[in-house]
Amino acid sequence: MNWKAVLKILGKIFIAEAAMMILPIIVAGVYGESTYWGFIMPMIVLLVMGVPTFFIRAEGEDMKIHAKEGFAIVAFCWLAMSAVGALPYVITGAIPHYVDALFETISGFTTTGASIIPTDTTLGLLTIEDLPKSVLFWRSFTNWIGGMGVLVFVLAVLPKENSGIIHAFRAEATGPSVGKLTSKMGRTARILYAIYFAMTVIEMLFLLVKIPAFDALTTALANAGTGGFSVRNASIGAYDSVYVEVVITVFMFLFSVNFNLYYLILTGHVLKAVKSEEAISFTAMVVLAIVAIALNVFYSAATAITSFGTALRYSSFQVLSLASTTGFSSIDYNSWPTLSQAILLFLMVVGGMAGSTAGGMKMSRFIILIKSTAADIRRLVHPREIVTVKFEGEAVKQETINTVRLYFVTWVAILIFAGLVISIETYGDFLTNFSASLSCISNIGPGFNLVGPAANFAGYSYFSKVILSLEMLFGRLEIFPLLVLFSPATYNK
Amino acid sequence: MNWKAVLKILGKIFIAEAAMMILPIIVAGVYGESTYWGFIMPMIVLLVMGVPTFFIRAEGEDMKIHAKEGFAIVAFCWLAMSAVGALPYVITGAIPHYVDALFETISGFTTTGASIIPTDTTLGLLTIEDLPKSVLFWRSFTNWIGGMGVLVFVLAVLPKENSGIIHAFRAEATGPSVGKLTSKMGRTARILYAIYFAMTVIEMLFLLVKIPAFDALTTALANAGTGGFSVRNASIGAYDSVYVEVVITVFMFLFSVNFNLYYLILTGHVLKAVKSEEAISFTAMVVLAIVAIALNVFYSAATAITSFGTALRYSSFQVLSLASTTGFSSIDYNSWPTLSQAILLFLMVVGGMAGSTAGGMKMSRFIILIKSTAADIRRLVHPREIVTVKFEGEAVKQETINTVRLYFVTWVAILIFAGLVISIETYGDFLTNFSASLSCISNIGPGFNLVGPAANFAGYSYFSKVILSLEMLFGRLEIFPLLVLFSPATYNK
Repeated sequence: MNWKAVLKILGKIFIAEAAMMILPIIVAGVYGESTYWGFIMPMIVLLVMGVPTFFIRAEGEDMKIHAKEGFAIVAFCWLAMSAVGALPYVITGAIPHYVDALFETISGFTTTGASIIPTDTTLGLLTIEDLPKSVLFWRSFTNWIGGMGVLVFVLAVLPKENSGIIHAFRAEATGPSVGKLTSKMGRTARILYAIYFAMTVIEMLFLLVKIPAFDALTTALANAGTGGFSVRNASIGAYDSVYVEVVITVFMFLFSVNFNLYYLILTGHVLKAVKSEEAISFTAMVVLAIVAIALNVFYSAATAITSFGTALRYSSFQVLSLASTTGFSSIDYNSWPTLSQAILLFLMVVGGMAGSTAGGMKMSRFIILIKSTAADIRRLVHPREIVTVKFEGEAVKQETINTVRLYFVTWVAILIFAGLVISIETYGDFLTNFSASLSCISNIGPGFNLVGPAANFAGYSYFSKVILSLEMLFGRLEIFPLLVLFSPATYNK
Repeated sequence: MNWKAVLKILGKIFIAEAAMMILPIIVAGVYGESTYWGFIMPMIVLLVMGVPTFFIRAEGEDMKIHAKEGFAIVAFCWLAMSAVGALPYVITGAIPHYVDALFETISGFTTTGASIIPTDTTLGLLTIEDLPKSVLFWRSFTNWIGGMGVLVFVLAVLPKENSGIIHAFRAEATGPSVGKLTSKMGRTARILYAIYFAMTVIEMLFLLVKIPAFDALTTALANAGTGGFSVRNASIGAYDSVYVEVVITVFMFLFSVNFNLYYLILTGHVLKAVKSEEAISFTAMVVLAIVAIALNVFYSAATAITSFGTALRYSSFQVLSLASTTGFSSIDYNSWPTLSQAILLFLMVVGGMAGSTAGGMKMSRFIILIKSTAADIRRLVHPREIVTVKFEGEAVKQETINTVRLYFVTWVAILIFAGLVISIETYGDFLTNFSASLSCISNIGPGFNLVGPAANFAGYSYFSKVILSLEMLFGRLEIFPLLVLFSPATYNK
């Protein structure tokens, strides 16, 4: 492992995070809050960690970054950023216990949006709406930062960088594989961030029509990152506005789309973008799910939804909230019939498209998984026929198929293992614990029953919170960087 | 497809099933029941279906059996045997509706042991204990027949057979691949059946010490096939005897063991058998699960189990009942804490060893899945290192690994799909429906909540029962034969 190269890049990331903390300080200034100290102190910590790395002398071989270093950079970067990013909550007193604050920060950066802050005003505890605006801003801002990724940000901001950093870039980006962006990587990163920024601003402007500026800003940030942290106890349900729900539903869809498609559209290749197999499949899945759930909810006696329009309103919001892995809520779907719940759980597994800010397994992996399985079954029936798996019009390499299957197996293993471990304490029932585990690895936020949309993760023990925090990181970084970090082989020789 | 070859072998299987129906007729005679007509009529049907195939003239090319024909023979054989095997229930009036009878028969042959016959005596319906003994015998006997497989039986009984039948044999046997048994296949099948028969008789003798002869016989049959049909409403709990539970627990373990190991022991290779990686892993898993659940149940306030000995008694029985996929029950584990339930669900996924009568994914597949995943992760960290996957001391071919992963993905897909489809009706909650789906594909019997050990599948609609019946067949035949049957490609050209 080339530790010098790893450290030099980590240093830059720490400086970037310090710079990001300027924004909540501004928010504190605007609202006259005394919470700015909660951000200045972590800034100092980050600068102390970051600046010395500029004096590390490394050239030639020392600066080589291979796959291993790429994984390590990403894993350390996310762990360290979360460890420091949790400090503002503790220092400002918003979240007194560090493990809780760490959970909230990892949940923020990984765009999960699972919270341990109470939403129930009857308990006499500090709820989300009681927290300082600067802290709430930081909370939503972590969703935004985590959505596009910190390394992508560093790449976008810094000029020419070590060419090996492509490995770190690959490790942080979502989905099975990053396209050919070797030499123009910095430029691509800048374009991606520009699209991301512009779309966030547009959503904010749409939201400003109906809700206060601070709510519009934080909701747009949390939505863009598909994180789902809301500044209201009742999440989006608090606004009780069809307009707001429609705007957010549309943007939850837009942020689940592979950003490369926006790049294609911007460069005039609209037709190619529209023909994307992944986009068509995702859209079809979402539409089918919306219709199926609307019908199921409408015809179910238990839900007390009497108009099909209302059923469609709640169904489309919840389907996109979970398929995009945002996790905003407008209604408590715990009372919905089993079929609707099962469809929602299925959407939670699949998630959004590769190269978007969404979590989950990713639609492209799901398509490759299904197509390669169908091809293997065909080969079984016709052993001498040559069967090729095509995705987006191109043949998929066997190596890619193997990696996707490896990912699926590991993903399921982590999901089950974490579900088992958090069941050691007797807090949650089966559906609570395993939907919590799924929600964390897919970076969604809410689950079912005790972690449903009207509840949160506050009831778990610190031990379980640590397990779930790790699971969120595994989900966001798509498993392998953290596995490399925890593998003893990484540190041998 | 060589239809002639397929039909000729199917014909022999029908005759074999007709012969098997002599036994319940004898039971009817012994107990003076007038139910023998219920078996004579299906016998006639089977003979009418079977005898004409002897007059089909086929030689040379016409009799060639390839993988495709092997799959088709197995799929048709199981479907047809079940369709006729359901008739005795309907004719005797034990189960009035044919779909219910078909569910019960497929559940029997696939060694699932899920039942639609009521166990609750307060409902005024016919319960298990009200049924004629000949019908109950047939019910348990289907478990025994299905355990070792019908084709294996035909192979064992008939002299020399078409060499291509190895494909059918492979398709019916459980686990990732059958060892080298080409030329001596008939002999191997006879040895396997001899071991199976002897072990069943030994268990019956042990049970005779404490329970009536009819109960001992049927319980031993259902146990040997790891089916789990009991002649008591309260299953094994009805005997309330530690001795009976211990005997059954031991035999549930013994019937989850790969029968090749017994063959090794009989031929003097005891050390090789004891060193089996699969056997060691299965034993370790079972012991760990027993201890974990016993501790969990003992320390949980909800279960009202006050002695650790009692906790161990219930824990060991339930762990082996579900790990061996038998599905007998001695207590209602629905009230157990989440961790115990989650461990039980995990055991339901893994199942027993390959080459045993048990269902589930199979321990050998599970080991190959874990080891190949670990190897792939290692390759990711050390791209230039040569990593080999070893199982039972030998290198595993990449082809085998791919097939195991393919199996896993398809298995999970069927599990989820069936769970979704049976959720269309509003009968079960999430855990009920998905544990029912898991229970059926793993050929276990009970699940959780409404399909828990104290309940059964009677409440589902006929539509859901058909779906679950198909799923049991997919589980027992390990997916591919049925997929081939349902694939249009099979019938082209």
